[in-house]
Formats: sequence, structure tokens, C-alpha cells
Amino acid sequence: MFGIAIHGGAGVISRASMTPESEAAYRRDLESALDAGYAVLARGGSGLDAVTTAVRILEDSPLFNAGRGAVFNHEGINELDASIMDGKDLQAGAVAGVRHVRNPVLLARAVMEDSPHVMLTGTGAEEFALERGVELVPRSYFFTERRWNQLERARKGDRLSAADLGYYGTVGAVARDQQGNLAAATSTGGMTNKRWGRVGDSPVIGAGNYADNRSCAVSATGSGEYFIRSVLAHEIAALIRHRGLDAATAAREAVSQSLAGIGGDGGVIVIDHAGRIAMEFNTEGMFRGARDASGRREVSIY
Amino acid sequence: MFGIAIHGGAGVISRASMTPESEAAYRRDLESALDAGYAVLARGGSGLDAVTTAVRILEDSPLFNAGRGAVFNHEGINELDASIMDGKDLQAGAVAGVRHVRNPVLLARAVMEDSPHVMLTGTGAEEFALERGVELVPRSYFFTERRWNQLERARKGDRLSAADLGYYGTVGAVARDQQGNLAAATSTGGMTNKRWGRVGDSPVIGAGNYADNRSCAVSATGSGEYFIRSVLAHEIAALIRHRGLDAATAAREAVSQSLAGIGGDGGVIVIDHAGRIAMEFNTEGMFRGARDASGRREVSIY
Repeated sequence: MFGIAIHGGAGVISRASMTPESEAAYRRDLESALDAGYAVLARGGSGLDAVTTAVRILEDSPLFNAGRGAVFNHEGINELDASIMDGKDLQAGAVAGVRHVRNPVLLARAVMEDSPHVMLTGTGAEEFALERGVELVPRSYFFTERRWNQLERARKGDRLSAADLGYYGTVGAVARDQQGNLAAATSTGGMTNKRWGRVGDSPVIGAGNYADNRSCAVSATGSGEYFIRSVLAHEIAALIRHRGLDAATAAREAVSQSLAGIGGDGGVIVIDHAGRIAMEFNTEGMFRGARDASGRREVSIY
Repeated sequence: MFGIAIHGGAGVISRASMTPESEAAYRRDLESALDAGYAVLARGGSGLDAVTTAVRILEDSPLFNAGRGAVFNHEGINELDASIMDGKDLQAGAVAGVRHVRNPVLLARAVMEDSPHVMLTGTGAEEFALERGVELVPRSYFFTERRWNQLERARKGDRLSAADLGYYGTVGAVARDQQGNLAAATSTGGMTNKRWGRVGDSPVIGAGNYADNRSCAVSATGSGEYFIRSVLAHEIAALIRHRGLDAATAAREAVSQSLAGIGGDGGVIVIDHAGRIAMEFNTEGMFRGARDASGRREVSIY
């Protein structure tokens, strides 16, 4: 069965913190990404194209902490990370710490397809973007008042909620196409007020992103350091491949034991080799959506 | 049983390419690192201190592609990556793309112990080094004539051997201490003539480095992109934890199937929860050494 799942971040998302208008806006952009990705699959396109399409739409939305709506680092600059992986041949691409790339997921894909490398960083990655014609934008493109205010409060020493930190705002997609090929993509602006060139789990293959036709595709969001330490995306794939679990059981075990066991929180979306979708999180909510060939189509927040 | 294993890179290391003098020099520095790391364990020190000590010595040697002997990137600059992990609590630290840090393994350890983050990159990581008093050195410290000549040849378009590319020159150590705690550390200068801020597997937790008391500690060396795509260090840990394999069987299966299956080559050193050491590679040779409480003490190249 073919299908796609997406997320727009997990964290403390209580009904009280959302207005009807903001909730409608989140749902609208999630549905738009979900349906565009699904349409790629429905017309026989690749899982890789489906996740690229979905993540690009979420990056272009100002609502999520990726691309356009990325949070600011300590110096008031947006530093973006992304990765993509093809479950057919385990090809992968990732970028970290880019500052002028409109759609980091497109650059990650160019790294995968047009370079001998997997992970490019910083100004070097932007040099590669220029050589490959991946669109660069001025820093002002990433300015949103909400994110700037969050930085100002963080700089003043205000205790920000996890949501305001953007800690849980990563976006991602996983898909299984009609040929049975799996793919995963993840993109983020990282943490508000981050310093020292900090890189989280999103561009780390195996931590925030993984795809392998033999097991599953995974995209993660949450307290990135804990996802790196538990190699969470690859742990879910290992549970499926070595212990024969399905997506839901593997995701539940990995989040409740490997992640929560060391104090981490967040969520994952998973689609396994049979097309079964799991969306698992140990936070109050996760912006998420799933659509597959059985007719399932849902977007949820809490 | 307590013990330590180290590596100084894997690749095309034929007897013909080594003089008696160069072989003696490699053996001397490998023995020095091995014995210093073992001495830490023998006096009851931690696995973490043992791997830090051993890797620091290999970084200070001009012979290996890490620290002092790092290869040059396309711009003629040394860019260093390293990581360290504590199997007791899955704490980890990593740095990528630093240019002035004498011992990247010490900076990775400072990231683990003195920051809330796991991975710091570029100038931000060096800012952190300054704040924490980790030693910076001028770029000239990393100049070695052999590496410069390799870059000149690469720039001229000469087809370099894997050894000359430094592709296989990473160093690393794994240890199990008398309390049964595992630790792993890995450090590298990456690839000769690398571009675009390329980062290999060494600073990627789960790819080139991993430690978990429940399974094993792993340090890898080789074609980094393939280690990232197969999440090789964590795959070995998963084979031990989910399928009950020992270090040697898990290392052999991961290298011969997960790594070689996608075209990768290189090697790994592994010490498992019972203190069993494996040193597995699918290249012609690997600079390596092992010493444990049973009296075993060996240094090998081919």
C-alpha cells in the first residue's frame, strides 16, 4: 500500500495555546503539504518526490520552524539543517548550518544526487548550492516577527516554553510509493537562541531521518540531542529489521524506551515496508497528518 | 574483563608501500597510544579517560590523518572532526569542521561534559573552545609536507590512492573499564582535497562512533559516506542488543553485509559488554592494536 505521513513538530501544544484562527492556519498548511505529497504518489511518482514536495511546502510556510519560519540563533541569524534519504539504495544527503538556502530539503537532495558526499556544512554547502543552481535568498527572507520576538525574550533570559524555543518545530515527511520504495525527509531551523554552531538531529542520518526499504522510513522531531544519542530513527529500523516488529510497535518501543529512557521527548512518523503508518510522540501534541491508498486522510494536532 | 583497542585508519596498506623505518614509526606511535590508554584502565581509570588518552596521542602524531597529521581540504586548510561517547549514560559530544583545535577529541569531550548539546560545528565550535579553555593552535601547527604534497597532487588531478587521499586515516579507540563502562572516541582530518564543508562519519554519532554499556563501543574508519548511510556503528550495537551476537560476529556481519553491501570499505574496532575485542576490516590493512587484562597485547598493520 502506498501512503505518506508528515509532521510539523511536536511539543507542548495545548488547546489553550491555540486560537481557532491559528489552529485553522496550521491545519490548512499541513493539509496542503499532505495532499501535494499524496498526489505525487497517486500519479505513480516516487516516494522521494513525494517527501520532497511535502517538506518544501512546510518550509515555505511561515508557521513551522523550517525554511521561511525558522527560529533565530543567538546572533539573530537563521541557520537551517535538513536531510533526505532514499530507502531503495540507502542514498542520503544532508546539509547543516546554511543561512541563505530557501529550501534546505532541495539542497540536501542535490547533495545526495549530485555530489559524492552525504553531509555538507556552512558556507561550503552554500558554495555547492550556487554551483548546482539551488535557490539562495537574502537573510531577510527568513525574518518573521514571531520568531524575532522569541529570540528577544530568550536573550532577556525569559524562560521560554519548548514551543517558543522552536525546539519541537522541525518538519518532515515519510512515504512509500507504488513501487514499494520508501523515502524520508526532515528540515529544521534548530533551537531559538542556539549557539556555537549547534547542530541537532535533523541532518544526522540515523538520528532524525532514515529510510531503508527493508524496514521503514522515519522522520523525527523533538529534543534533538536525545535523538542523536539514541540514534532513534535507525533504532526503529533495527527493531523492524532484526526483531520483526511493525511500524507502530517499533515506534512505541523506541520512543518510550530508547528516547524517554534517557530523558528525551518528541515524536516520530514512520511508514514501514508494508505501508503501515505510525505517528508516535510522548509530548502533549504533534502537528501531523497521514494519507494512504486505503482512503485514510487525517490531520491532527493534539 | 577490561581492555582497549585502537585504530589509525584502514585502507590499501601493502607491505610494498612501507619501508622498515616507516613501519617502525607507525608501530611505535600505535604502541604508545595503546599502552597509555591501557595504563589508565589498569590503574582503575574510566574507559572515557582511556579512549581520550589514546586518541590524543594519535592526534599528536604526524603520521595519522587526525590532529597534527590531518590532510588538507581543497582550500589548503585542515578541517578536523571528532566525537566521543560514554556508554554508561549515552552522553556524547562531537565537533565538525574546526580549524584551530589541537586535539579535537578534547573539544568533543568538552561539548559532551560542559554543553547541553551533542554536535557543534565550525567557528561556533571554536568559540566554545575559547570559552572552555580548550587549546587552539595556529593553522601552521597542522602543516606537514607529506599532506601538502598529497593536496598538490590531488589539485593537479593526479589519481591518488586511498591512502594518499587520507580517506582511511581516521584514528579511534574503544575501551571497557574495570567498572564495566564502555567508551568510544574517533578523530579525523577527513579527505584530502575535500570541498563544500564536507563532513564524514567520524563526528556522526551512530555512524563512525558509538558506545552503549548494553551492547558495545565502536570506532570506525573508511569510506565515511557509506558508514553514515549504513549507520554502521549503531548497526553493530543493534546486532548485539537485538540479536545477541558477540563483538566479532556482529562486526563481521555489519562490515560484510551492511557496509560492503552498498559498496563501502574500511574497518571497525569493537569491544562488547563482556570485554571481547573485534577488529574487522575489508581493506588490505588497518593500523590497529588491542590490549586487555588477559595479557593480550598486539599491534598490527596488515
